[in-house]
Amino acid sequence: MKNNESIFIDVQQETLNLQKASDFVNHPEAGAVNLFVGTTRNHHDGKRVIELYYDCYREMAIKELRKIAEKMLEKHDLKRIWITHRTGLVPIGEASIILAVSSAHRKNAFEATAEAMELIKKEVPIWKKERFGDETVWKEEKLIENDGEGKGEK
Amino acid sequence: MKNNESIFIDVQQETLNLQKASDFVNHPEAGAVNLFVGTTRNHHDGKRVIELYYDCYREMAIKELRKIAEKMLEKHDLKRIWITHRTGLVPIGEASIILAVSSAHRKNAFEATAEAMELIKKEVPIWKKERFGDETVWKEEKLIENDGEGKGEK
Repeated sequence: MKNNESIFIDVQQETLNLQKASDFVNHPEAGAVNLFVGTTRNHHDGKRVIELYYDCYREMAIKELRKIAEKMLEKHDLKRIWITHRTGLVPIGEASIILAVSSAHRKNAFEATAEAMELIKKEVPIWKKERFGDETVWKEEKLIENDGEGKGEK
Repeated sequence: MKNNESIFIDVQQETLNLQKASDFVNHPEAGAVNLFVGTTRNHHDGKRVIELYYDCYREMAIKELRKIAEKMLEKHDLKRIWITHRTGLVPIGEASIILAVSSAHRKNAFEATAEAMELIKKEVPIWKKERFGDETVWKEEKLIENDGEGKGEK
């Protein structure tokens, strides 16, 4: 299934656009829109992060993101869902992921956002390379958050 | 306390601006930004909504919003929080409230957003007037969502 009126997915090197995400999920029957933006932090495990790269097998990442979007749309009775993930160099403070959902009532929007982020971290094959002062570390996104503590925020 | 580096509150007649909310809460130590947008729906309790007005005693609404912001900032270890509420006529599909928060990890951002919205609905004296076909109904925001079902989304 390609992008349609209810689902938009992309994995891109360009800067992610919050307003486009908001415009896409806006819907006359939706009273609630929730947008999550994962941004590059300047620290991780107490170490200063200088640069962050994301890499993936694009077609596979899109396929997995779409599966999650379809599941959330049905399970949480969403009107629309948008997921865009950035790859390549993501400067400190810029977005690596934008997840936006809309629903009639806000409870559904909140639950869908939290659950979708868990699934994305666990199931989507996107790798993160953090450059600290003199050390570079590659990590598989789906492995770095199994502690459930929200560590390694994208 | 006035608006400062960590808290921005406003109650305004002008259109709410998502990008400004996002820019305000962005912070180099924050890995997570969550933005909630309450929008005017075209239906409520099965009836078609034509117009929606919000009214309030502005100084009191700002004071109560600020109390909630301060509480959330401390309780959920947020970096920043932004709450803007629109008053006057809000056309269908436009935002009546934007709540944005940032934190190091996403769990805090999600919990703070959900809790802040509950508190705003319960404690901030803002009235909503819905115009259906031939009927106009004023409601006190803080009374309309006590069922906990997320009904009457702003």
